[in-house]
Amino acid sequence: MIDSLIEKIIEMQNPTCVGLDTSFDYLPDDMKVDKNGEVIATFETAAERITEFNMNIIDKVCDIVPAVKVQIAYYEMYGYEGLKAFDYTVNYARGKGMVVIADCKRNDIGSTASCYSKAYLGATQVNDKKIKSFPADMLTVNGYLGSDGIKPFIENIKSDNKSIFVLVKTSNPSSGELQNLKLDNGEYVYERMGSLVAEWGKETIGKYGYSEVGAVVGATHPEEAANLRKRLPNTFFLIPGYGAQGGSAQMLKVCFDKRGLGGIVNSSRGIICAYKNPEYSGMNYSDAARAACLDMQQDLRNAIGKMGK
Amino acid sequence: MIDSLIEKIIEMQNPTCVGLDTSFDYLPDDMKVDKNGEVIATFETAAERITEFNMNIIDKVCDIVPAVKVQIAYYEMYGYEGLKAFDYTVNYARGKGMVVIADCKRNDIGSTASCYSKAYLGATQVNDKKIKSFPADMLTVNGYLGSDGIKPFIENIKSDNKSIFVLVKTSNPSSGELQNLKLDNGEYVYERMGSLVAEWGKETIGKYGYSEVGAVVGATHPEEAANLRKRLPNTFFLIPGYGAQGGSAQMLKVCFDKRGLGGIVNSSRGIICAYKNPEYSGMNYSDAARAACLDMQQDLRNAIGKMGK
Repeated sequence: MIDSLIEKIIEMQNPTCVGLDTSFDYLPDDMKVDKNGEVIATFETAAERITEFNMNIIDKVCDIVPAVKVQIAYYEMYGYEGLKAFDYTVNYARGKGMVVIADCKRNDIGSTASCYSKAYLGATQVNDKKIKSFPADMLTVNGYLGSDGIKPFIENIKSDNKSIFVLVKTSNPSSGELQNLKLDNGEYVYERMGSLVAEWGKETIGKYGYSEVGAVVGATHPEEAANLRKRLPNTFFLIPGYGAQGGSAQMLKVCFDKRGLGGIVNSSRGIICAYKNPEYSGMNYSDAARAACLDMQQDLRNAIGKMGK
Repeated sequence: MIDSLIEKIIEMQNPTCVGLDTSFDYLPDDMKVDKNGEVIATFETAAERITEFNMNIIDKVCDIVPAVKVQIAYYEMYGYEGLKAFDYTVNYARGKGMVVIADCKRNDIGSTASCYSKAYLGATQVNDKKIKSFPADMLTVNGYLGSDGIKPFIENIKSDNKSIFVLVKTSNPSSGELQNLKLDNGEYVYERMGSLVAEWGKETIGKYGYSEVGAVVGATHPEEAANLRKRLPNTFFLIPGYGAQGGSAQMLKVCFDKRGLGGIVNSSRGIICAYKNPEYSGMNYSDAARAACLDMQQDLRNAIGKMGK
């Protein structure tokens, strides 16, 4: 799947990904009431409105943005009705040709990880029938449990043409508490996690030199990002932290190689809440999202240059 | 919530927890067909049968077992219909007076972690209405992102009387790849994670001396478990790995203090699939589950002794 993503990035000259972290709170006021003008007060109706919001954003950006990242926590908080919205959003975005990253950061022991892998990358068998649950293209995972918690995902990567991104250096302020501890051989924990990621991906390197096992590397930590780019030449980066979290194009350009490839940058609130930003005043939420995507693309291209020279 | 759990453990003299990792595959053959005798082939019907299976197990064990641990991966693989079964199971077990541990190993940056915390420990606001999503008593979390990914859970612990268990030393064979790396100060990564857990929990220590921020410590690693018990006198342990994964009562007794307190031991397949075990032949699945619970209780009491002396 990583080759398809890179091809779309080159074709659109846009290494970005829209984060659909759609809290009901983020919706415009007129979407917070139902068709009869009543204030919405159930998960079911809230989830329907979230789906509608996502669909309109997807329609407006799918020709200029290669991927969406759907953050499942924002759907889980609306119960199983929220998960229905998650499912619908994943399917709708794929139907529009976008690469869908399920941002779930799943992790467990092998037998349980294989359930997660079925849920997001493969299919689940019910008697003789195989059914897809939440059919994403790519999934984020947490590698704290080591290889046997990752192996089931690698199997689906190979059999179903999927990719994963393993948390290596996360974008949040306290990520260093664990990730930047120094080991007795002089390495940092995040560097060691990075080496495991390279090892896990080494049999799945595609035509652009990047493997199906990518790394999550926050835009907010440029020193570690530059270090990881050097250490992991075959690892593609999913880069959160741009915009609302404080990461800039100048900070994250170290994640890219000489061809302008090697990463995809996520922005969530900066896009889906753009309509609240005075810069896009007067626009409806989906037009504002598109305008914000174009501005982000320009900002990144100024820093990174042409992709796929 | 940890005090309530410990009280139930003392009252029942049983430091165990039934893991409802209910794969549809585990169900008896007569539950794999619908009421008309047709082979079940949809998530909806599969999830209904899983719920029925869980309810019958809960009915049969709720007077002798203090808690259930519901492993969400096994529900996610059946899509949002599976999550409906998860929700129903959580509510049913709580209704029967059991302490419910949602085993979700959630983790993310602060703003996103707060969505997970609402989903499992708190409530989600839709306009002016607060609604509960998957109302568990306790939640497992992964601490790789550090303090700001844990903080939202701590807030719900305090406001809603809940508990969490943070992964410290997991039960799987490859857990050492990250967790047993040695730091430059001589500590291991899992020890450092343990110290963070103690720090996160220090304001929530209850009347038995244990805090609301517990640790997941695998029964399969007795050396690390003994070490952690010594280092973390105020941290309660959730102990997976007994039975199917190879952990024994003798291996895990190091997790308990002199009063026979300090941990709760999970068994999943050993209980819910007991009906397939020749030892319980002729019993239906729920009677076999109860018999396996009683055997497990005896096995643990022989090793640990009386709880709450």
